[in-house]
Order: sequence, then structure tokens, then C-alpha cells
Amino acid sequence: MKLQLAVDRVAIEKAIEIIREAENDIDIIEIGTSLIKDFGLESVKRIRKEFPDKVILADIKTVDEAEYEFEAIYQAGADIATVLGAASLETIRICQKVAQNYQKDYMIDLLETSPEKQIELKQFTDGILCVHLPSDKSTGLLTLIESTLSQIHDFPRLSVAGGINSQNIAEIKKANFEIAIVGSAITKSANIKESAKMFKTIVDGDE
Amino acid sequence: MKLQLAVDRVAIEKAIEIIREAENDIDIIEIGTSLIKDFGLESVKRIRKEFPDKVILADIKTVDEAEYEFEAIYQAGADIATVLGAASLETIRICQKVAQNYQKDYMIDLLETSPEKQIELKQFTDGILCVHLPSDKSTGLLTLIESTLSQIHDFPRLSVAGGINSQNIAEIKKANFEIAIVGSAITKSANIKESAKMFKTIVDGDE
Repeated sequence: MKLQLAVDRVAIEKAIEIIREAENDIDIIEIGTSLIKDFGLESVKRIRKEFPDKVILADIKTVDEAEYEFEAIYQAGADIATVLGAASLETIRICQKVAQNYQKDYMIDLLETSPEKQIELKQFTDGILCVHLPSDKSTGLLTLIESTLSQIHDFPRLSVAGGINSQNIAEIKKANFEIAIVGSAITKSANIKESAKMFKTIVDGDE
Repeated sequence: MKLQLAVDRVAIEKAIEIIREAENDIDIIEIGTSLIKDFGLESVKRIRKEFPDKVILADIKTVDEAEYEFEAIYQAGADIATVLGAASLETIRICQKVAQNYQKDYMIDLLETSPEKQIELKQFTDGILCVHLPSDKSTGLLTLIESTLSQIHDFPRLSVAGGINSQNIAEIKKANFEIAIVGSAITKSANIKESAKMFKTIVDGDE
């Protein structure tokens, strides 16, 4: 299982400081939606420049204008870009095509998607599906995982986000996810370096 | 009916030039999602500074982190902010609350929402519902309007977006919309000023 660190709601320079602390123990840097909406593509360009060899996910949450947004974000330096599963299949197909052209990855965020839509999204076999509890709902991640996996447990690449913390990470580790996405449980901890290491140890587990 | 001009996929300075051309004939300036994702809040701050007395909608398409995003966008100078109807009801309730605190407006974008969700969204009686054909689907606006209005025709404040042009604006004028949102039919026309005036004349019509 890989560890993705989501960095949100800070200035770009602060984001770089946080990532620098956690760098050795994370597999993927996530430039959160708030950084993109606050600072635009500059957030991706600056962080790419600071971390030239790290995998970077840009959580752009595309829902329309897929060609424009995905080309811009890959050109800015992202390795993985996100599209909402709630978007039209046409939009997601364009994201898939742009990702293929750029030889990059794309992640489909299942935020608020219906079970029927989740099943439809399994056609995107070269993407990553992300089980995502909204920040605006604070509890229920394990329940959401269970109900979502009943549709998509056999999908090749799965990730999970939303409220992962030191209490539930061991339970999440047991499920079939490629990537666990952790945000404030690391970025807001008193010791970011130690916290990232703790999550990394659990996430690595017996593999 | 009001005319909202959506400006997208240009640099901020170019956006300002386009708005300046159309200024006299538009009621609402829309800072498109692409400007926010490309340049961040700076796009809203710069355009607010140039047009201090115009109503500005920021198409931020919030889908989570509602308090953070809505506070940031209102503080940057927006009068109206958008949230996806596909977001959770919890998220939209937070948008509503922040809008009330700031005494600003909010628009719920019906992009890819089901008829059932559209009916649920009618509880947000102080918001504006936006019937929206995705850019990634190029045709079918009139069909979408007809099928969506069967759920929400009695909602107090309605807007419409997505592929409005000189051919269909007269037909759209007949329906019960408060705001018609026009993008490239004005911004990409050879004469932006004349084009905005033409749309404004039809939109004003006999009221």
C-alpha cells in the first residue's frame, strides 16, 4: 500500500515545508484542491520544482472542460490528475484520453457517486478509483468503504481518502487499496516527520 | 432576464479586456472555473478591482470543504459563488450558511444531477439553481432545459448555461429563467461589444 500526503489550506511555501518534513516516508505528494483554487497552476509548478523526482497528484477535481484542465495540469507537472466520478462519462473519457496521450495517470474521485454510477465507472480500467468521504461529513469512513467495495472490490487500482487517522489506518490497511491518502492526521500533527513515519510503517506492513 | 458573461480559458489581463468590451451590456461577470484553477483567487481579486461596481460570480464549483472555499471566494470579492448540486447536502448547507453570513448569493450547478437530486435541492430556497449542459457535451441544451424544468419550474430563482448562442437565445428567453449565462458566443465573437449588445437586447425583451 502506498502513502499519499494531501496538503491543503496553506500557502505554497508552507506546503513545501510540510512536504519536506514528510518527504522520506511518503510515496505521493497530493496538491490539494484548496491549493489549486487558491493559487492556481503555480502551486503545481512550484512544488514540482522543489520535488523533481516525487510522484505528484494534483487534486483538480475536474467536472467539465476536461481537455483544457487535464492538459494544463499535466503540463504544470502533475503525474496524476483527478476527475469527479460525478462528472459525465463523456468528461471522464476525455480525461482518460488526455492521460493516455501524456502517459500519465488519472484518478476518479467517487465522492457522492451512486452505486449505479460506481459500477459504470469500472469501464475506466486504466484509471484509479478513489473511495472518498467528504471533509464536510466527519464520520463514517469505514462504513463508506464497506458499502463502496461491494461494487468495486475487483477493480484493479483503488485508493481511499477522507478522515484516515492513527485510529483507523490499521483497519484500512486490511482492505485491497493501492493508495491510502492521509491529510491533516499528518500535516496538522505536532511532529510531521514522526507522524508520516508512523503511517508509513503501518501502510507498508507485511507486503 | 439578466445576462451573465462567462469568461474562460484566457489570462487575467485578457479577461479584463473582454469584460471591458462587453461591460455596458452585461449584468453579471462570471469568472470561469478555468480562471480560478489557472490563477487562483488572484483572478477574482484582480477583476473585482477593475470592476468595483459590477456583480461578480465566481464559478468555483465547490464540492467539498465548503466553509473554506466559500469564505475565501467571498473575501476575494465574489458576490455569487457556485457549488455543485452533485455535492452532499451537508456541503451545500454549509455554502448556504456562509452565503447568509456574508449576505451574498450562491448558485447550485445542476451539472449531471439526477431528477431525484434536483427535487431534493429545491429545499435551498434562497439559492439560485443553474440548469447546465456540460461543455464536454456539445448539443442538447433545449432538451436538458425541458427535462430539468419538469422538476424545478416552480423554483424561485433559475439560471441556465451551456451552449447558449444566437440561434437558441430567443427560445431560452421564453422560459422562466432569471439569468442566462453566455460564454464563447460572446467572448469568441469577432465583435464582442456588438455581440453582447445583441444578446442583451433579446434577453431584455418585453419584460
